[in-house]
Formats: sequence, structure tokens, C-alpha cells
Amino acid sequence: MSAPGADTQQGIRRRNLARVIQAVAADGPVSRAGVAARVGLTRAAVSTLVDALLRAGLLIETGPAVPSGRGRPGSGLAVSGTGPAGIGAEIGVDHLAVCAIDLRGRIRARLTADAANRNSAPGPVLHRLAGMITEVTDRIAALELWPAGLTVAVPGLVARGATTVVHAPNLGWRDVDPAPVLRALTAAPQPLTVENEANLGALAELWLGGGPDGAGTPPPDFLHVSAEVGIGAAVVVDGQLLRGVRGFAGELGHVPVYPGGRPCGCGARGCLEQYAGEAAVLRAAGLDPDHSGPRARVELLARRAAAGDRATSAALRNAGTALGIALTGAVHLLDPEVVLLGGALARLAPWLLPSLERELTARSAVAPHPGAASRVQVSASRWGADGPLLGAAHAALRAVLDDPLGRHRTDAVSRRLSGE
Amino acid sequence: MSAPGADTQQGIRRRNLARVIQAVAADGPVSRAGVAARVGLTRAAVSTLVDALLRAGLLIETGPAVPSGRGRPGSGLAVSGTGPAGIGAEIGVDHLAVCAIDLRGRIRARLTADAANRNSAPGPVLHRLAGMITEVTDRIAALELWPAGLTVAVPGLVARGATTVVHAPNLGWRDVDPAPVLRALTAAPQPLTVENEANLGALAELWLGGGPDGAGTPPPDFLHVSAEVGIGAAVVVDGQLLRGVRGFAGELGHVPVYPGGRPCGCGARGCLEQYAGEAAVLRAAGLDPDHSGPRARVELLARRAAAGDRATSAALRNAGTALGIALTGAVHLLDPEVVLLGGALARLAPWLLPSLERELTARSAVAPHPGAASRVQVSASRWGADGPLLGAAHAALRAVLDDPLGRHRTDAVSRRLSGE
Repeated sequence: MSAPGADTQQGIRRRNLARVIQAVAADGPVSRAGVAARVGLTRAAVSTLVDALLRAGLLIETGPAVPSGRGRPGSGLAVSGTGPAGIGAEIGVDHLAVCAIDLRGRIRARLTADAANRNSAPGPVLHRLAGMITEVTDRIAALELWPAGLTVAVPGLVARGATTVVHAPNLGWRDVDPAPVLRALTAAPQPLTVENEANLGALAELWLGGGPDGAGTPPPDFLHVSAEVGIGAAVVVDGQLLRGVRGFAGELGHVPVYPGGRPCGCGARGCLEQYAGEAAVLRAAGLDPDHSGPRARVELLARRAAAGDRATSAALRNAGTALGIALTGAVHLLDPEVVLLGGALARLAPWLLPSLERELTARSAVAPHPGAASRVQVSASRWGADGPLLGAAHAALRAVLDDPLGRHRTDAVSRRLSGE
Repeated sequence: MSAPGADTQQGIRRRNLARVIQAVAADGPVSRAGVAARVGLTRAAVSTLVDALLRAGLLIETGPAVPSGRGRPGSGLAVSGTGPAGIGAEIGVDHLAVCAIDLRGRIRARLTADAANRNSAPGPVLHRLAGMITEVTDRIAALELWPAGLTVAVPGLVARGATTVVHAPNLGWRDVDPAPVLRALTAAPQPLTVENEANLGALAELWLGGGPDGAGTPPPDFLHVSAEVGIGAAVVVDGQLLRGVRGFAGELGHVPVYPGGRPCGCGARGCLEQYAGEAAVLRAAGLDPDHSGPRARVELLARRAAAGDRATSAALRNAGTALGIALTGAVHLLDPEVVLLGGALARLAPWLLPSLERELTARSAVAPHPGAASRVQVSASRWGADGPLLGAAHAALRAVLDDPLGRHRTDAVSRRLSGE
């Protein structure tokens, strides 16, 4: 999906087109001269590239509004609010969601539905999701947007470089490939990718900044811990996801924290999920782990903790301690700059963080300098439970930003122009 | 140290020079046509690059011995056995070592000395090491080799991009920069780098292959666990060291394995080092943790275990269990292809591996496929305790292979040619 790095004429042009559209997307409206300064190319070269992007409908001219410093004011360029859209879909344990974002990063359509996907047959779940994808692509067609790619977020392990969900324990899925069904039932755009939800949550942080206001973009090295029903993590090194050899990196939920402790569904004992997973916390709080409704369980915990319920507070405190032990190991191994708590953990952060940080501090005393900042900064993601879905939509659109005039997209433009 | 990636004429020439010398180093003797085929350049371009490398004394012609397929046999090219040498130095807790390797990867000089560096003043240690470096560079001068770089391996945390040993607990060093002393006391070649010994052990695996016979090169994604007195690890992803934001990644020794367990010198409880570190194992085996002599303590453990001593066998078995718990966490987070046990752990692997693998298997049952290879392969490094020193010497030479005619080297060549 990323622009090939070959030193061919074509490869260099592709990279330069990507640089131009990314500069405009990040800083627009901006003049051609402004783009040239940002990407380090001549104004003439930039003009040629901009013309190609204008013809493809990826950029638009916003009028002579942006002074370029000297000479006559250049015409402003911005990425188009019509044209390609990234489609993100999410298969949660008790919800389904689909959204579309445009090149400006705005959400243009969004559907969410309650669902009972725990231990489900994949067929009906994918049929229902396909219907939602079709509804979203129909809606955006009225906005002059066409789907440029689809990324599906799943709560499980996805084989590296493939679309197969190898194991999603809370869905009860093994070796399920959603791609053929979604291709058959929707006008599913290429590329169609399937990705672990914690990874997409991390990419949302990286691409969207730390919050809806665009501030607080995390540094290029961070650990993103995510929870829906299970607990996962994504390791970001130098702005890139660390995927692992099989694509299974980031399985924080099965890091041993109390090695002789509670038996886990995975066959081991004392896994983090048995102390900080949703079912464990609900049980410890004296609540029904099967209490239903999307996100209702997390809200129930948050409400009771906010109301001062002692059992709930203690359950969350102990979960924070377990998270702190597991994260101590992760921080020692990876030395990230920041740990972000995403998904349900973001919502519950006020009650998890004190014990989590206490553990991390006490266990990171092997400080480089007694006075120096000796431990990693831990904070809640401001995207929270929305991260995976937004990350999925952005991942789908990322392919356009990395290779703006790639074949599959010019094909789609041709089809669109010829009314197919 | 790696060749800059800029698309300038100079940058492209530098990359191509590196490609040529690396192809010859890997496959020589080889003809110019053979090099051209391997690196994907024209024969004319390769001839120009080869001439520059011959003039600098980095390549030599080995005579018309290598048939190139058709036409007259090409003259064979090999890397020079004279010229630049990489100097590796190692500061161990109870030894010092220095070695020099040539471009062919052969060890041309090596000195090892017993030392009592635990809780030492840095000055005398560095003075002694400087003397050994000078002796090695004097020895190789007689072999027509000149030092092209020096890398110093230390058992501690080194600040990223710097030469400062931030903390080496078993030496008792904090914020010690060996570079100024070594520069002042030796004709220490540039570049002079300081690096964590576990990282260099991992680089030795990567660059030297899995063993002295060159076979068994690890895959590009592996975890290298190393022990001298402490326990460290290096994370290699896609052939590159993962360093962490501060340079402290790979601190496996302080991953919590029994969180309520034995107090550790770092201030935490239940760190891996308290169960699998050298002192802990010696104590559990009923031996004196202060038993002295370089590597003598590890040999003592190995001898007693081989002789069937029950206390020693139990101590190593429990150490393997603790390693297995810590590595389960690391494998879940990183999904490497292989875990290599280096340093003292390589020597003790026969007694550590059974319980280590038992733990890892039992805790990795969240297998993608019930039938598939569900867990990482664990094996002993064949370089063992030599890894860090050899890795250091190779790291020093690597700068030549990555930028063969870099300024500091042409300066050194000029000085050498003018007899300075």
C-alpha cells in the first residue's frame, strides 16, 4: 500500500505525487509555491504534479487567496471534499459499525448497530456488515464521493499480509476470511484489508493526532493498549506498526502477570486478561459479565465507579495494578515514549491510572538518573472506542495519499467518469 | 553509520560503492560481471566503482580464476585482507577483551584479561582497556591493517545516539562516557561507538551467521537474550535493532515474573534477574555468588549440572521457568520468529531449555491453528559469550562496508599513505 521505493522514473513520480498531496492535505489551502517549499521541489515540477492531481479530482483550487510571500498571490490548493473516500468497518463483539471519511479527514457517513457477535457464525455477521457498507457507499455517492478502499477492524489476530482472521477468541472465529463475502455482497472497493482493531486504534492516534481537535499527536514511538472485550496492544516504532513475523505482535492480553494465577481460556494461567479484561472486572465488581448492549458494560462500570461503588472501584484498581505489571514488562522491552490507553480503557482511565502508574513507577526504579524522568508517560487516548473505526477509514484512504494516481484508483476514476 | 539515503549523485554513488563491496565481501572471489549481476548495475558502472575500491585498497584482484559464463574469464575480486580493521572492545564484569577483524571477517588479533570490574572506578578500567587497544592496533599494524573504527561493548544502558553509559549496575557505573578517555589514551579510530553488549551479541548473530561455520543465520526478526552477570535482550525487527526512545529497549532482566516475589536491586520485586540472573542461580545451587574468575562461575554451574548435581539442576530448571515466563510476555508482544540464548545462557542452555520451553509452550496455547507451529523456536547462540566482542568488531567495520570511501576513511588512508 505504501509507495514503492524504487529509483525508477515512475517510482520517483509516484513518491513526488504523494509528497504533494500529503503536503496539501496537512497544510492546505496552500499555493503551488508553498507546496514547492514544503516538499523541496521546483515550482515547475510541482505545477506539473499539481495539474495531474487536479485532473484526477484529488485537489481543487480555492481561488487567489493565499499570499505566497512575493509576486502575485498564488492560487490556493486544497484536497477535494469530493472524490475518493475511505471506508472503515468494525466487527465488534457486540456492535457493527461502518463509516466513510473524505480526503479532508471529515466523517461523511456513519452507521452503528447493536449486534450479538460473541461466538457467532461468520456468515450472517458478514452479510449484515455488507448491507451496512452498501448503505454507507450509497449515502456518500449522493455527496459525490466514491469508495477508494475498505479496511475492516476485527478483535483478533490477522495473518500478516493477508485478510484472514486467524483467531478472534471473543467472536469464536478461527480462520475466517471476510474478504470474499464482502467482495461478493458489496461493490467493495480495492484495496480491501482486514486489520487487528488495536493496530487501527494506534494508526488513528498517529494519523489523526491525539484528539478530535487535532492536538496531541503521539510521538513516533508509543504503545497503544486497547480493550473491547479482550485486551490488545499495538507497538509503534518510528511511526510504523511493529507487526511481528506472523502479524501477531501486541498480544498484551496474554502476557503473564501472576504466573500461577487464574486459568485463562487460552490454556495458560495468570494472563493479564484474567485480571484486567472486561469479564474479569465485571465479575470482580459483582456485576453480570453477560450484561448486554454495546459499550453498556463499560458505561455501567464507569457510572458505578463515578458513584463511588466500592466493589467497582476495587475491581478497577486491581485491573490497573495488573495492567501496570504487564506494561512494566512491555516498557522494559520496548522503551516507548508514551503508553496510550485506548478503547474501553480510555473511558475507564480515571479509575485505572492511579494503580497502574503506581505499579509502573515502583517497577521502573532502574532509572537512568535519579532526577530524570524515569518512566514512560501514560495517558488515555482521546479517540477512545472510536479509534479502530476511524483508523480503519483512514487506513483505506491512506492508500490514496501514498499513491494518488495508482492503477486501481485511475480505473475507479475512469469508471466513474464513464458512468459505469 | 549507515549509508545516507539521499537521492543525490553523491548519495547514489555511496550506496552503489557499498553494494559492490558488500557483494564481494559476501560472495568473493567474484568477477566484475558477477558483481554487476548481483547488484543490478551495468558492467561499466561496476568497473568504475571497483577501480575506486581497488585504489583505496579495499578490494584486491585475485587473478583470472573465475569464469564469468561467457567471453574471456574475468579477473576475480576479493575484499582485502589488509587495510581497514574493525576494533571491538568489551568491558565485562570480570574481564576485558579487545579484538581486531579484517574485511574478510577473520580475527587477526585478540587479547583477553581477567579483571575485577564489579563496582569499579571507571578511570583505571578504561586506562587498562586503552592499553589493550593500543597493543592490538600495534599488532595489526605489522599485518598491514589499520583501525577503521572502535566499538566498545558494555553491560549496561547506553544513551541512544551517544557514547554515555547511563547505567551499568554490575559495574556500578552511572553516566560514564568512555569516549574521551579512550580518545586521549589511544590512537582511537573514528567512529568510536559504545553499545550495550546484548545489542552487539544480536548484531553478531545477524552479521556472522548462527555459528563459526557461517551457517544458521537467524531470520530478520528475532529476540536475542544475553547474560553475563545481568540479563539483557536485544530486539531485532526486519534486520534492524529496536533501540527504544532513550536507547534502553531490551531490559528483559527487569521484566516482572513473580510480581510479589524477591526484592531486586532496582527497587522492584520479582524481576527476572532475581530468578535467572547469575547470582540468583549460584545462590539457589548452594554456591558462592562471589566465586571469582571470568566465566568461571558459569563453568562451575555447567560442570555441576553435567555431573548431575541436584541443587544445581534444580536451580537451572527454575531459572529456565522464570525465563520462560518473561519470554512468553516478550513473544506475545513482539511475535519474533526465533529466540536465541546468547552469552552465559548459551553455555547453560542444555539445562535451561527444557523448563523454559515447557513454560513457553503451556503459555502460548492461544495458537493460530491447533496443528500449526504455534510457538517461537528457541535455541542457543553458537557464538555464546564471544558474541558481544565479535559483534563490536564487526560494528566498527560495518561503517566501512556501508560507506567505503567515507571522509574519515579517506582521511585515514591519506594519513597512512603519507606515513603520518
